[in-house]
Amino acid sequence: MPEIAYLGPPGTFTEQATRRLTADFEADLVPYEGVPVALAAVRSGEVLAAGVPVENSVEGSVPATLDALTVDDPLVAVAETMVPVQFDVLARPGLELSQVNTVASHPHALAQVRGWLGENLPKAEQHAVASTAAAAAAVANGEFDAAISAAVAREHYPSLVRLEHGIADVADAVTRFLLVRKPGALPEPTGADRTSICAVISDEVGTLADMLAELSLRGINLSRIESRPVKDRFGHYRFFLDFDGHVADTRIGEALAALKRRCSTVRFLGSYPKADRKPGYVRSAASEQAFDKSARWLEAVREGRLA
Amino acid sequence: MPEIAYLGPPGTFTEQATRRLTADFEADLVPYEGVPVALAAVRSGEVLAAGVPVENSVEGSVPATLDALTVDDPLVAVAETMVPVQFDVLARPGLELSQVNTVASHPHALAQVRGWLGENLPKAEQHAVASTAAAAAAVANGEFDAAISAAVAREHYPSLVRLEHGIADVADAVTRFLLVRKPGALPEPTGADRTSICAVISDEVGTLADMLAELSLRGINLSRIESRPVKDRFGHYRFFLDFDGHVADTRIGEALAALKRRCSTVRFLGSYPKADRKPGYVRSAASEQAFDKSARWLEAVREGRLA
Repeated sequence: MPEIAYLGPPGTFTEQATRRLTADFEADLVPYEGVPVALAAVRSGEVLAAGVPVENSVEGSVPATLDALTVDDPLVAVAETMVPVQFDVLARPGLELSQVNTVASHPHALAQVRGWLGENLPKAEQHAVASTAAAAAAVANGEFDAAISAAVAREHYPSLVRLEHGIADVADAVTRFLLVRKPGALPEPTGADRTSICAVISDEVGTLADMLAELSLRGINLSRIESRPVKDRFGHYRFFLDFDGHVADTRIGEALAALKRRCSTVRFLGSYPKADRKPGYVRSAASEQAFDKSARWLEAVREGRLA
Repeated sequence: MPEIAYLGPPGTFTEQATRRLTADFEADLVPYEGVPVALAAVRSGEVLAAGVPVENSVEGSVPATLDALTVDDPLVAVAETMVPVQFDVLARPGLELSQVNTVASHPHALAQVRGWLGENLPKAEQHAVASTAAAAAAVANGEFDAAISAAVAREHYPSLVRLEHGIADVADAVTRFLLVRKPGALPEPTGADRTSICAVISDEVGTLADMLAELSLRGINLSRIESRPVKDRFGHYRFFLDFDGHVADTRIGEALAALKRRCSTVRFLGSYPKADRKPGYVRSAASEQAFDKSARWLEAVREGRLA
């Protein structure tokens, strides 16, 4: 059975996400103590793949994930999932909500349920710990009365009692995760795919605008952009881009080739089915048929078959 | 003496940054337990300003800072500083490095000195706690032998002994902080300024490319871009942009007015001196003189003073 790494300790949102990402096959999930270590295990072949947070995570440093994806040997994403930022309140057995005097969680998680805590546990002392999973562990050890945790934490600490399910101040906040592995056969296009790349450009005025024009001219919808300075090259910026479409699509392929000509480095980070399975809108002039038709017309022109 | 908020507990990198940001005036620094609470204190007038992390921080959630800046009443940045991501090793008195068996820090901080720990404290047990400051507090309480902390932490725990200064696996990693306050008179242009905005656009192909073209056409150098989905409006994206120049500059003013026409929302987040004080490169066709000259020429044309 293949082993799949995830950001530990056991019971985190990343474990929950990695279970979804590997739902279609049998796998042993193995916790690692940081994203860089988890990715190193994929690169060395110690594990087959890793589930990692890439957007707005409650735990784990997303910049660290992005950095780790772009150093050393290439890795590519083969699947994505979104996990709602909703928490369970897990307590010591026998306690009711009104008896909870101390509550623990990751500081970002406490911040995300600030309103709920103010309304439901206004007098409870709040304790910040290293992860939502560590909070559940500390409650199981008797250190605190209750933990704000991912739902999956309860499976690791079955003695805990769930006092509330799915709490969140903002109902639709999500965090996004990718399953990454060594390059190989790409996932088949599904018609609702996303492509991720990292591009390095130098600090010349207009270069980014030109880069994005290469996408927009081809009707490609950008779903995310993030810049990060390149550590060892002053004045160079690295851009993480996600856009609708699969590298097998003609418009995506043409755009990537154009970026390859324009940028000092382009790293392909994967084409994979979108978590929401919603086909992106492609305007008719950018469809596969339109590209096919224009290619056949050009061929005819070049061969002198048209006046 | 004015009170200035920062992301606590005392002894964090944000405290270190906020000291720098307030070096020019007398101020009482007051720790707050989260960036949203610190910004709420600025909005309510409880404090004059707040020091907050906005890029790649070791502590505090940068997405949470960006979100908190764009809800509720406007706030603007008036100063920026960069703090190197370098740590001190603070230990219980009497201990030498070779006697350190347990070491504590924020999980992101432990990740950032992974190489150093492997080389210098290969056998020490690592403990993840809620902040680098909490690690120093725990060492002062006798829970662990040593903490990986910001240099400033030692001032709050003077009993601790500094075993190492300025450790870091990557020498030039920095984290960026802003001092934000209620809108009022802007900082004077210095010739080396940065402007920050948040713009909301709908999910139409090409809109971002058009937006960036408004900047690049006017010779404006983008130093950072980050997209965040707008929570309550599906298909809308919020972009955080930082670029060289001051809103008092003609080219920046024109570009901002153009974005205001193009975007559903533009929030001005401040024009302030760049931390590195390096003037950005402005090509001659985008200089104040060139704008002045073209404006005078246009006036003359409109008044019929030129053929």
